[in-house]
Amino acid sequence: MNTSALQARFYELRSNKIFETFVIAVIIFSALVIGAKTYDIPAPVLQLIIWTDILITLFFLVELSIRYLGEPNKREFFKSAWNLFDTLIVVVSLIPIEDSELALIGRLVRIFRVLRMVSMVPELRTLLNSLLIALPRLGYVVLLMFIIFYIYGAIGAFFFADINATLWGDITVAMLTLFRVMTFEDWTDVMYETMAVHGFSWFYYLSFIFLTTFAFLNMVIGIVVSVMEDEHAKERAAKAAAANEPTLQDLSQQVAELKQMLETQHKRNSDTMDR
Amino acid sequence: MNTSALQARFYELRSNKIFETFVIAVIIFSALVIGAKTYDIPAPVLQLIIWTDILITLFFLVELSIRYLGEPNKREFFKSAWNLFDTLIVVVSLIPIEDSELALIGRLVRIFRVLRMVSMVPELRTLLNSLLIALPRLGYVVLLMFIIFYIYGAIGAFFFADINATLWGDITVAMLTLFRVMTFEDWTDVMYETMAVHGFSWFYYLSFIFLTTFAFLNMVIGIVVSVMEDEHAKERAAKAAAANEPTLQDLSQQVAELKQMLETQHKRNSDTMDR
Amino acid sequence: MNTSALQARFYELRSNKIFETFVIAVIIFSALVIGAKTYDIPAPVLQLIIWTDILITLFFLVELSIRYLGEPNKREFFKSAWNLFDTLIVVVSLIPIEDSELALIGRLVRIFRVLRMVSMVPELRTLLNSLLIALPRLGYVVLLMFIIFYIYGAIGAFFFADINATLWGDITVAMLTLFRVMTFEDWTDVMYETMAVHGFSWFYYLSFIFLTTFAFLNMVIGIVVSVMEDEHAKERAAKAAAANEPTLQDLSQQVAELKQMLETQHKRNSDTMDR
Amino acid sequence: MNTSALQARFYELRSNKIFETFVIAVIIFSALVIGAKTYDIPAPVLQLIIWTDILITLFFLVELSIRYLGEPNKREFFKSAWNLFDTLIVVVSLIPIEDSELALIGRLVRIFRVLRMVSMVPELRTLLNSLLIALPRLGYVVLLMFIIFYIYGAIGAFFFADINATLWGDITVAMLTLFRVMTFEDWTDVMYETMAVHGFSWFYYLSFIFLTTFAFLNMVIGIVVSVMEDEHAKERAAKAAAANEPTLQDLSQQVAELKQMLETQHKRNSDTMDR
Repeated sequence: MNTSALQARFYELRSNKIFETFVIAVIIFSALVIGAKTYDIPAPVLQLIIWTDILITLFFLVELSIRYLGEPNKREFFKSAWNLFDTLIVVVSLIPIEDSELALIGRLVRIFRVLRMVSMVPELRTLLNSLLIALPRLGYVVLLMFIIFYIYGAIGAFFFADINATLWGDITVAMLTLFRVMTFEDWTDVMYETMAVHGFSWFYYLSFIFLTTFAFLNMVIGIVVSVMEDEHAKERAAKAAAANEPTLQDLSQQVAELKQMLETQHKRNSDTMDR
Repeated sequence: MNTSALQARFYELRSNKIFETFVIAVIIFSALVIGAKTYDIPAPVLQLIIWTDILITLFFLVELSIRYLGEPNKREFFKSAWNLFDTLIVVVSLIPIEDSELALIGRLVRIFRVLRMVSMVPELRTLLNSLLIALPRLGYVVLLMFIIFYIYGAIGAFFFADINATLWGDITVAMLTLFRVMTFEDWTDVMYETMAVHGFSWFYYLSFIFLTTFAFLNMVIGIVVSVMEDEHAKERAAKAAAANEPTLQDLSQQVAELKQMLETQHKRNSDTMDR
Repeated sequence: MNTSALQARFYELRSNKIFETFVIAVIIFSALVIGAKTYDIPAPVLQLIIWTDILITLFFLVELSIRYLGEPNKREFFKSAWNLFDTLIVVVSLIPIEDSELALIGRLVRIFRVLRMVSMVPELRTLLNSLLIALPRLGYVVLLMFIIFYIYGAIGAFFFADINATLWGDITVAMLTLFRVMTFEDWTDVMYETMAVHGFSWFYYLSFIFLTTFAFLNMVIGIVVSVMEDEHAKERAAKAAAANEPTLQDLSQQVAELKQMLETQHKRNSDTMDR
Repeated sequence: MNTSALQARFYELRSNKIFETFVIAVIIFSALVIGAKTYDIPAPVLQLIIWTDILITLFFLVELSIRYLGEPNKREFFKSAWNLFDTLIVVVSLIPIEDSELALIGRLVRIFRVLRMVSMVPELRTLLNSLLIALPRLGYVVLLMFIIFYIYGAIGAFFFADINATLWGDITVAMLTLFRVMTFEDWTDVMYETMAVHGFSWFYYLSFIFLTTFAFLNMVIGIVVSVMEDEHAKERAAKAAAANEPTLQDLSQQVAELKQMLETQHKRNSDTMDR
């Protein structure tokens, strides 16, 4: 019973608005510390920053413990991807960063702490979720674009590798060059170089630009249309639920009942008349 | 009573179409004077421009006074952001621009006079307002993009600072470089430089471009959808108000009344029959 | 009556499908001739082209005469902007191009003959009209963008003219440089140059890019929404006209009549019963 | 009857899920082999790749034969564009690639084998079809853009050919340069060069950018609107088909019948009363 009382108290603390605001403040502060480290700073300030860093790590450890202990159902805790992410960040932060091999990972983890912001602010969480939900429906368009890139990359590597090995050396490099062409980044320099050897290679670039632009456009329009439809469907459902308005079917039913009633009455009247 | 009569006369003057057109003409003329000053001009013309400038400042002072004296409720006058803006522009224009320190501010204020155009033409005012209204609903997307920039900026500053301090020296400079990458401005030059040291840094750039493009797209679609919905809602409201058409609910009610009437009649008939 | 018969015959000829196709073929041929002239061609071929050019001019003169003589109402002919355009092109083509001053205009007119394609193909004509119709509704957005350009141009000319006179010498040149910045064309080169003197000038560029991108976006969305609304309105009107479906109002009326009928009958029945 | 049994067996095999997955796996494998060939590889591996290539070609031959033999109606087989494409790829692959002239075609065909992926995965096939369907409705916009390019190309070739023959030498090269200007690729370098001679040539570039951007925008909006309308139409049809809801017309009919019934009854009643 003692643990249950503790759990309830932690649960309360974790849902506390002031506590949440304080956690967000610490996350922002840790982001500023990371930013500060990128400047040339005198040794004593650097020492201060290292101590601050340890304090922040400890705070995150305590905060995570409170959130875990406050959870009524311990199993549910690790089912949330955000909780797993938070735990990973905290655990890796605890590894001492002196070893040069692990130092790299330690540094990256400290930077990714800023992402905890997203896990704390519900609006950002839903925004990120909506971005992730939109991704799969683009799956086949992305696959088609990859096929276009692969084919053009192979052609480019076969024909232009001798002209400029840095740009067209192998298929990976050629695909990176094609991505550059797609962003229009100095693409004419790339084209003029190959046109000097293969006069008609402008067709290669123009057809590639048309295909990718067209596929990209189609992708964007696809998202717009599906988002719009979802919105419309939601709207219609909300309207139907709120208004509780009778449908045309209901009305038709009502009129049909009326008709039946009249017929019965009519028949009865006729019977009476005939009597 | 004398002041009240004056106020009414000023109010009339201020609402006068010819007066408004004249003020707009002076604003355009002051804009042309500012433009002329950027050219190399002979001394006598410059002297003329300085005198014109003083005349324009005096005209704006007189015009603002008329607008203020013409206002029936003096307190309301300074509640409008546009009036405050106009007053600020006029007051700062009165400061003599000989002092080199203040000369800068004096010059800028004279340039911002062109913005008075927006405060005079109602269509421009509503357009600017609609732009400002659209901003807050993008708040969280902008925050998410800032987080993406901050994380990539920190990573960039940590790994690439030694390669090129001008581009990746600290987090501020790194974020400016990332903005450049986002606009596709010579981004491959930046990438090739870091790829020479860290071979896999192309993943850093490509993932950044995908993330920001996707977030930007989402933002644009978000605005389109919300603008469309507002339009649809307005349209529907206008249709409902104008047509005064009965709803399905009204019709259902009517049919139900009819049914009740028939039932009463039926019952009465039966009673008569039974009698 | 002779002239009337001639007019009818010309009218017939002008509406003839084969004649129209032939005119389009001549226009395409004249476009090819213009294109051919841009290549280095031997003297005899050039002589051939000059003769072809004269033949094409004469053909267009004959064709225009047929169209004019075939017009039942001569006054209507010059009310069409396309007819005026065709006449202008033909008349200016008749001026001999030997004079070096007029040669320039003569050459341009020969190029603009390609535009006669648009005046001949109805689909292109409607497409161009729809583009022109869309322009005015962008009027105020364009004005607002011009004000933004003018203010930033004036600021740029004042502060950066000493740094690079080619880019920021006067307000016209500064606005052209800003247009370049808006298209992201080597804008960082421009920025880095001024940042070397004024450290905070990145704010000038970033705020400009945000403002213009946002205004441009707003403009695009504005067109999309208004085009969609026009389409929806057309669709609704077409549906209403085609289906001739009764409205809810009609139905309500019908039910009300039914009710009245029942009431009359009811009353009559009661009267009979009471008798 | 023996052939019919074989045909049925082949048909079964071809529709088999495992067989289909295996074919897709071979296609992906052949794509990887093509990619591998672009790298510098030691001679024995290259020999292995050549043998693999032959095996893949044979497999595709067998697979195509199965598909052909499994087809109940042999004539239908070559009516599908995808089957024709597959046959072409397989037949050209059989040509030995030793001859240097044909080697080029042989290589290209091996690359285009990746496109067989699209012919095998139904989702990709429908996606590509929807892209192809969208193309023709852009026909006239593309024609209009070509006319704009042609006119600007001719003007550019006439005036700027002497300034820079590489960029403006003839109309073909000039149109390629204009395409570069449209993608904003170092367009200011092109402009500054001609502005040194013809001071007002900035108007040429700016008007071209405005025209093409505007036409492109119009094209995109055109696709969005037509796609949306198709979706709406489908949705409405689906709703009508699924719900089997009575229309307002049906309801009006019902009420009218009711009215008639009442009238008949009324008349009969009156007759009885009068009796």
